[in-house]
Amino acid sequence: MKIEHLVEQIHKKESFLCIGLDTDLERIPAHLLKEESPIFSFNKANLCVAYKPNIAFYEAYGSAGWEALRKTIEYLNDNYPELFTIADAKRGDIGNTSYRYAKAFFEDLDFDSITVAPYMGRDSVEPFLSFENKHTILLALTSNEGAFDFQTKSIGEKTLYEQVIETSKSYKNSQNLMYVVGATKASYLAEIRKIIPESFLLVPGVGAQGGSLEEVCKYGMNKDVGLLVNSSRGIIYASSGNNFSIIAAQKASELRNKMAMELKKK
Amino acid sequence: MKIEHLVEQIHKKESFLCIGLDTDLERIPAHLLKEESPIFSFNKANLCVAYKPNIAFYEAYGSAGWEALRKTIEYLNDNYPELFTIADAKRGDIGNTSYRYAKAFFEDLDFDSITVAPYMGRDSVEPFLSFENKHTILLALTSNEGAFDFQTKSIGEKTLYEQVIETSKSYKNSQNLMYVVGATKASYLAEIRKIIPESFLLVPGVGAQGGSLEEVCKYGMNKDVGLLVNSSRGIIYASSGNNFSIIAAQKASELRNKMAMELKKK
Repeated sequence: MKIEHLVEQIHKKESFLCIGLDTDLERIPAHLLKEESPIFSFNKANLCVAYKPNIAFYEAYGSAGWEALRKTIEYLNDNYPELFTIADAKRGDIGNTSYRYAKAFFEDLDFDSITVAPYMGRDSVEPFLSFENKHTILLALTSNEGAFDFQTKSIGEKTLYEQVIETSKSYKNSQNLMYVVGATKASYLAEIRKIIPESFLLVPGVGAQGGSLEEVCKYGMNKDVGLLVNSSRGIIYASSGNNFSIIAAQKASELRNKMAMELKKK
Repeated sequence: MKIEHLVEQIHKKESFLCIGLDTDLERIPAHLLKEESPIFSFNKANLCVAYKPNIAFYEAYGSAGWEALRKTIEYLNDNYPELFTIADAKRGDIGNTSYRYAKAFFEDLDFDSITVAPYMGRDSVEPFLSFENKHTILLALTSNEGAFDFQTKSIGEKTLYEQVIETSKSYKNSQNLMYVVGATKASYLAEIRKIIPESFLLVPGVGAQGGSLEEVCKYGMNKDVGLLVNSSRGIIYASSGNNFSIIAAQKASELRNKMAMELKKK
């Protein structure tokens, strides 16, 4: 997908909500792959612009999980080609191996994007960047506690995550890069925007992990919006009772309405 | 597998060779899963102590690849339970997600170990460490060019990879940690051994990537040997002709004989 189509969708729906599919296949098996699945109803109601399957939750079921993942992405691509899809896989390896992962997620499964870990550097990331209209979402500053172990440590005058962002700008086809920046560290976004004013950011951690949507927008929004705010547990696991679909839709709708307000502020 | 059983095997076979299965299923499909497969003959000839399937090469084939991976590990566990098995997967994510990956590779597939990226810190690694007699091989200093992007950069008085090793020692169940250290940077091993004198190291990069076995042993070997030296392309792709099995066995045998010599030196 081209970035301009993503931006178009965001303005049309007044939403930059990404629904994270941390889908426990044992927990919601029956309706997962049906068109009437509540998980996919967020899109029909124009509440979200992106879906982010968490690959671990599929891989835990082996080849059956892989088939479920394939059906999920095929369903999305066939029925909602305007949606932006993210394989949350956190891959990254030496060149020929990263290239295999890229082919698996970009060609075989036809995701629009994949999350990638930066630790192994340039030749572990560039194979992902070589695919046209496919996007590589590099881990910069994650939303978990462990982010303080290394990411926020100083390397010379910069922190590691700033150095990762800065260095990645010199990678071949860096125009295909986006970055993960956790909402739990929203105040860092002002500095990050000085390094990458135009890039899209995938922002986890709003809601369940305590991040504030207002702060994320205040420090992170750019002229193209430039944000995809993810919610997983806060929406799809808001309730495990029979009222699942009602509560989940309500939570998604609340978040989307806040997003519409933030967009109007700009 | 317990470490002492791995050490026992190393001394018995006079080998610390790990065979990397960067297996292109299209290239060598017919004999991959047969007992007489030349890929598994290295073990019967007592040449190697470990196998390391590269998960990307299986994942590239979707659910069929996943089934091939399952058959490979089942074959190894059923027929050669004394072999140490490594899922080269480079995973790492927030806690509940890392836990899914750990269950997939340690319980469902029953690998002895998995490679993990350290970028997301403590809570992304500890879920892997909670499995008894399973081992987490943390990326420290990798063998590729991109290692110089971040890993060798200074964080205070240490480099990032040294900080990763140092910090990881405080993780819960850190006795289950091993580390990836590339043979192409063998001279760094002396410093690394000061931080982790007893840990096992998985060493890629001997042969095809130019690393020297002698240097790796000189700087990296400890009282329990403490090394698993991997060769993938240098052995399984040494020849793609009809003489594949002869050439591959010859290459593996050469490397193992050098290892036996290094073990005698100590």
